[in-house]
Amino acid sequence: MSPQALTTGALDLAGIRERVDAALADFLRRPSSRVPPQNRRGHRHDLDRALTDYVLAPGKRIRPLLCVIGWQAAGGDGGEGEGEGEETVMRLAASLELFHAFALIHDDILDDSDTRRGLPSAHRAFAARHRGRPDADAFGRNLAVLLGDLALVRCDGILHTAGFTERQRHAVLPLIDTMRNEVVLGQYLDLHTAGSPTDDIDRALTVIRLKTARYTVERPLQLGAALAGGDAQTLHACSAYALPLGEAFQLRDDLLGTFGDPSVTGKPVTEDLRSGKATVLMALAVRLAAPRQAELLDRLVGNPRMDEEGAMAVRRVLEATGARATVEKMISDRYGMAVAALDRSPFSPHATEALRRIAAGAVVRTA
Amino acid sequence: MSPQALTTGALDLAGIRERVDAALADFLRRPSSRVPPQNRRGHRHDLDRALTDYVLAPGKRIRPLLCVIGWQAAGGDGGEGEGEGEETVMRLAASLELFHAFALIHDDILDDSDTRRGLPSAHRAFAARHRGRPDADAFGRNLAVLLGDLALVRCDGILHTAGFTERQRHAVLPLIDTMRNEVVLGQYLDLHTAGSPTDDIDRALTVIRLKTARYTVERPLQLGAALAGGDAQTLHACSAYALPLGEAFQLRDDLLGTFGDPSVTGKPVTEDLRSGKATVLMALAVRLAAPRQAELLDRLVGNPRMDEEGAMAVRRVLEATGARATVEKMISDRYGMAVAALDRSPFSPHATEALRRIAAGAVVRTA
Repeated sequence: MSPQALTTGALDLAGIRERVDAALADFLRRPSSRVPPQNRRGHRHDLDRALTDYVLAPGKRIRPLLCVIGWQAAGGDGGEGEGEGEETVMRLAASLELFHAFALIHDDILDDSDTRRGLPSAHRAFAARHRGRPDADAFGRNLAVLLGDLALVRCDGILHTAGFTERQRHAVLPLIDTMRNEVVLGQYLDLHTAGSPTDDIDRALTVIRLKTARYTVERPLQLGAALAGGDAQTLHACSAYALPLGEAFQLRDDLLGTFGDPSVTGKPVTEDLRSGKATVLMALAVRLAAPRQAELLDRLVGNPRMDEEGAMAVRRVLEATGARATVEKMISDRYGMAVAALDRSPFSPHATEALRRIAAGAVVRTA
Repeated sequence: MSPQALTTGALDLAGIRERVDAALADFLRRPSSRVPPQNRRGHRHDLDRALTDYVLAPGKRIRPLLCVIGWQAAGGDGGEGEGEGEETVMRLAASLELFHAFALIHDDILDDSDTRRGLPSAHRAFAARHRGRPDADAFGRNLAVLLGDLALVRCDGILHTAGFTERQRHAVLPLIDTMRNEVVLGQYLDLHTAGSPTDDIDRALTVIRLKTARYTVERPLQLGAALAGGDAQTLHACSAYALPLGEAFQLRDDLLGTFGDPSVTGKPVTEDLRSGKATVLMALAVRLAAPRQAELLDRLVGNPRMDEEGAMAVRRVLEATGARATVEKMISDRYGMAVAALDRSPFSPHATEALRRIAAGAVVRTA
């Protein structure tokens, strides 16, 4: 992509993705510590390489993308000196992907997930690599704790060298702190809600708001806008678009996690049901269920030994109660709100157009 | 402590400790996220409180102390404007304690340690609190992963609000990145060395250098000195003092971990032996051991079921081989090097005097 493609004409999303990946690869290539190589005994290179492989694996890069679009939306292409260059926004965007690696790696430990993006989760991959050890599972988990820690340490490293101006620092850093605290809180709430199904729709929506709507959509968009000097009205417009869209995105994710095609999503389609994930879909079903349906949900959902037949029975209840249709309705309502917010927003036309495309892609998708 | 006590006359170490704790308490008291309280359901308050309790529990505060002394050593009391105030050095010092909480909490998960500072480790304490759950151990470990994550997130939060000038930021942030990467590398090496005893003294010393000498002594001292505008010669003098002292400190720790009084150290005296911790002490014993002694070490060290009688037999081998005496000699050699480095240093007289006291306290102690 030429540098011009970012700031003039329609936004080239694939091109932005490439530039974020280039910023990540460039940063991760440099040694992460001044420790003399002879003291490393090859080990650290392993952990560095594991992080590089993890971060640069194919992905949607939705957070970096939204960050760059937010920057563009708030006039970040003005390029009026004072360090508001593309290099800085690419580094900020790349830092979100490193933070996300940290969050995913630890989240998969907490959920004891086998897979991530169709591949073994980090702790499972490490355990497999050390299968010869009697404590392979614990050892793999320990390595993954460290890998997640390294991702967060490296995230700060790229932020420390992003080249922020004083104004940018004051605008961006408090938002980063808020985002990180929200993620930890979201994971904490998530940890307390896994288990048996409940009808607590509000709580499921709270987790969605923290873990997806704010974290995946609102904060990245606001971070880019804040970097470009966006005012309070602009940051508010980010939220007005992001919160309904983020909820729609996660609601779609939950439907795909139960009704999707595992060969497309890369995610076993019974995992959410087996783990008893407290989705809005499930909370609706519990609330709407007749006694016999409720008994079935209570018996099967959250049961790690649930088989495919059991999963089919649960899916039938999710349909028969109307929970699935209700979630579809919630998705399209929220999609409508997000698009309406765009129409009222002060964003640049090209950014508005890109956000419209992203909204459509987020709610109508198969993976 | 009066503000003057920090910058004039002899350094009041207890007073500095109090001020660091006050900075920590003040920062931790503020809500860590803008999430509306009604969405928190009390849970986040639990995690926040757990972190506050953990961080403010009694401790030596050695890293914050060294950071403030490093600042004083490099003339940080000059107070020539540009934000080099005491508030900033206290926040930087406090951030080290938050980072340390992160490192300890995750380290105890990696080592599966039962205790820390004479109290249950974080994951054990959480597991005990949720004993009613069938997955109490895993749940406690998961909460501790999150608590450690929160500590690192909050560490960044206090750094982001420390009030650094542009010059301070350029001097301090790369050192922080280096320190953090060294710690992750040290933990990674540690993870790969636990198990059966080896005679690899160099490797044991490498881990000591990363995990203690650099992390506990050199970097905190350099961070304070860099904040105050210390030049290359001053930072070099920090290392010349810190590296031998840090090694002596850890060698003493290893001796206390095997020969100390658990009622004073707060640490079960067989834990290092049972876990097969790859100390210099043990590497020396393996290298110096006669065949029958080597057989005994190989059979008992790293055996989680080793009893007190076995531990006594190992201790006798550590003495009979001369390993314990050699470590004592290494400690006093290194102490001598650290003190000699102070005599050559450009540090302020009061800082030099404080560092001399700290050196003596680090090598001659019972806990």
